[in-house]
Amino acid sequence: MSQTTLETYFSKVDELKPAFIQRLSDAVAIPSVSSDEGLRPQVVEMAHYLKEQLANLGAVDIELKELGTQPPPVINSTLQLPPVVLSRFGKDPSKKTVLIYGHYDVQPALLEDGWNTNPFELVLKDDKLYGRGSTDDKGPVIGWLNAIEAHRNAGIELPVNIVTCFEGMEESGSLGLDELIEQERDAYFKGVDAVCISDNYWLGTKKPVLTYGLRGCNYYQVSIKGPGADLHSGIFGGVIAEPMTDLVRVLATLVNGQGEIQIPGIMEMVAPVTPEEEALYKDIDFDVSDLTAASGSNTALYQSKKDILMHRWRFPSLSIHGVEGAFSSGGAKTVIPSKVIGKFSIRTVPNIESAKLDQIVIDYVNAEFAKLGSPNTATCELIHDGAYWVSNPHNASFTAAAKATKAVWGVEPDLTREGGSIPITLSFEEKLKTSVLLLPMGRGDDGAHSINEKVDMSNYIGGIKTLGAYLHYYAASDTN
Amino acid sequence: MSQTTLETYFSKVDELKPAFIQRLSDAVAIPSVSSDEGLRPQVVEMAHYLKEQLANLGAVDIELKELGTQPPPVINSTLQLPPVVLSRFGKDPSKKTVLIYGHYDVQPALLEDGWNTNPFELVLKDDKLYGRGSTDDKGPVIGWLNAIEAHRNAGIELPVNIVTCFEGMEESGSLGLDELIEQERDAYFKGVDAVCISDNYWLGTKKPVLTYGLRGCNYYQVSIKGPGADLHSGIFGGVIAEPMTDLVRVLATLVNGQGEIQIPGIMEMVAPVTPEEEALYKDIDFDVSDLTAASGSNTALYQSKKDILMHRWRFPSLSIHGVEGAFSSGGAKTVIPSKVIGKFSIRTVPNIESAKLDQIVIDYVNAEFAKLGSPNTATCELIHDGAYWVSNPHNASFTAAAKATKAVWGVEPDLTREGGSIPITLSFEEKLKTSVLLLPMGRGDDGAHSINEKVDMSNYIGGIKTLGAYLHYYAASDTN
Ligand SMILES: [Zn+2]
Ligand SMILES: [Zn+2]
Ligand SMILES: [Zn+2]
Ligand SMILES: [Zn+2]
Repeated sequence: MSQTTLETYFSKVDELKPAFIQRLSDAVAIPSVSSDEGLRPQVVEMAHYLKEQLANLGAVDIELKELGTQPPPVINSTLQLPPVVLSRFGKDPSKKTVLIYGHYDVQPALLEDGWNTNPFELVLKDDKLYGRGSTDDKGPVIGWLNAIEAHRNAGIELPVNIVTCFEGMEESGSLGLDELIEQERDAYFKGVDAVCISDNYWLGTKKPVLTYGLRGCNYYQVSIKGPGADLHSGIFGGVIAEPMTDLVRVLATLVNGQGEIQIPGIMEMVAPVTPEEEALYKDIDFDVSDLTAASGSNTALYQSKKDILMHRWRFPSLSIHGVEGAFSSGGAKTVIPSKVIGKFSIRTVPNIESAKLDQIVIDYVNAEFAKLGSPNTATCELIHDGAYWVSNPHNASFTAAAKATKAVWGVEPDLTREGGSIPITLSFEEKLKTSVLLLPMGRGDDGAHSINEKVDMSNYIGGIKTLGAYLHYYAASDTN
Repeated sequence: MSQTTLETYFSKVDELKPAFIQRLSDAVAIPSVSSDEGLRPQVVEMAHYLKEQLANLGAVDIELKELGTQPPPVINSTLQLPPVVLSRFGKDPSKKTVLIYGHYDVQPALLEDGWNTNPFELVLKDDKLYGRGSTDDKGPVIGWLNAIEAHRNAGIELPVNIVTCFEGMEESGSLGLDELIEQERDAYFKGVDAVCISDNYWLGTKKPVLTYGLRGCNYYQVSIKGPGADLHSGIFGGVIAEPMTDLVRVLATLVNGQGEIQIPGIMEMVAPVTPEEEALYKDIDFDVSDLTAASGSNTALYQSKKDILMHRWRFPSLSIHGVEGAFSSGGAKTVIPSKVIGKFSIRTVPNIESAKLDQIVIDYVNAEFAKLGSPNTATCELIHDGAYWVSNPHNASFTAAAKATKAVWGVEPDLTREGGSIPITLSFEEKLKTSVLLLPMGRGDDGAHSINEKVDMSNYIGGIKTLGAYLHYYAASDTN
């Protein structure tokens, strides 16, 4: 592409800014909360809103793909899942094809949770756009529509074929999406060269990032069972073996107060840090104060940037989440719970083998329980897992995104990973056999999932420019 | 008294059996569940039922003592506490005065909980009377009315003055009762020589008991606070100190799998076992199989009768009840809870000093937390305590009850203690400066607080005889 093309595009984005704010405002006004069954019609309304917008922008083959009824637990057993919005812009076999993914559902939000303004009304204040979904993930989804509109309006041909895949259940486990990707991989999604997901955030508040890695998560539970029913501690305290006593003693052996996993054999599977990888951390814009601000406390386990980021991104961690079956309310209840289930999970990283990890964990828990000599019975099991994902941050798609970022923001983006998982990333990569890029629009302090969610105006407009520019640089790249 | 008097009384009880079953049936039919605000009118109805019955039996000075509105948490902030039913039979200054305590409220019960029959309909099957409250505590309360009726009907003068104190909130913490005892100690309760509480059970199913001791209970919580809000374990796992990690490590130091309290200084306060006390255990009808049956599991910490009973009755125990603030539902949630509150309690026995115990426990928890070197903050506090109670099982009241038991059942009762607390026992003893006797009617397998609660017909009728006979033997005793 010529530099003029991009400049024309950027100018058009600036020119259309009022319309782009209005479009985001219209989207935020639809309370498409996927976890609230009563708001399911609004989630579906949001899908229809997108369909109409896409049609106006010239999309073809628009389909609202139905995913069937929502599996239990649900209140309404015939509740339909919201549809996935598929559409295309262009089918030129000489162009590359980019699949853009986003989600049009949002987290719940109530004014009384502590919002300063109505969460379903986009409010501009101090150059920030407040509203539920402004950054997660209506901002990016509407951002793509805006990027396409700016091209049309400026008379610039889209440099790639685009396939949209906008889902409405991301905040509720992306139910049905895996199956859809599988089903459409040789149909609607045939010929996709790259996937771009804009559903995460800059690490901090100042510097753009591209994200090339996510940790996985293996979630376990250890169930300890004793008496036939809950007992009264007055009558049975001191004369029977209590499952809760055993459970805290087992859980206490998993991880120490410094966050070091105590189960032998796990750290040994972690890929060694190479000098090349180590160098990536040097320029990243991050400081312990960012962690302190985000956690709302001075409880960091590490003080240096590199230690913190490495432990968030490339080392495993073990968290104990809670106990099912024990007393969990306020006040005092003198119960001996008959069966307690401790929940913990391990965040996984390369090169931890998931099945081997499960075996190591289960064997260790069983051995620690055996040491107690308790007459109770214990079972440890995996209840959920999701693999880690690491991409090559120097492939064609990442390189194009880096150039786009530089063109818009004037700086090289930081190459980051994230501690959590976005399971759909791996699904796209594995099922479509293609590379996936995480190209965020918002900042680390946007408050996704929290009260007073916002997107900075500069990130919204800069994000629209970046998404569009990425398409041009990717189109111009030599290889996939 | 003459032996003839007792025989006449016993015959009359047998003769009136159909009427006594009908009276219990009428009482069980009123669902006086004190924990259910919606059933409060039925609790009050039960008080009025008792008032009418007492009036018919010749009671005087009948009062339904109002205790004011129920303190929070309540749904209805103007909810009135059910009244305490006070009445007298006789005011003869030459006679001793016995206060009889019982409660007319019951535990909740629903057919769908697993009852074989409607819980609020007394059903006779295999010589057992099934129904909510049959043994706890409508059986004993109605039993007292029956004992009085049998005296009237047989023309036998009551050998003592009786004061009734029947409350309607026992299953919900006896709210307001302490204050009433305090208020009436020099008024309605003036001149009371002995208190008889029939609200516990035989140890097993074959041999009658008198109960002379109860353990106390000091209930603690340890709160560990870290981040400002719950965090996502993907983003924060491995980089901040997690309160739940600290909590399980602290809780794990409190007690071992053999039920041995690990906090130094507590066992040192326990009164030594004397040979005299040890001898009391020899003849008690109890076996490890009773414990196994009651707990529904083979998880006993001791196998010998003496070890089990001593650890239930006269040694302290420590139970961990649960955790507030952590994830406690089914399934998997990847939360790092920001503040978790571990709950545990210690059952106390002579000569543990409550205030000293609190200090020892709190200091120990603080020291164990300090060992973790965690940047989180911990607080340990007492949230509730109730003192232990031990009486002289050879005083006049106990001796009279033993003779009554022998006269009815043909055996000497076992002298037992209980592992739990009945806080009102100590209130009566301390506020009225009098001795308290626990004289149970039902058996250990009656299922109080459980489904299919019952009282054996032989215990109901034998209990009525025992309660009445106790009054005669106590009246005839030389001393208080
Ligand atoms: Zn999102
Ligand atoms: Zn989200
Ligand atoms: Zn009771
Ligand atoms: Zn009860």
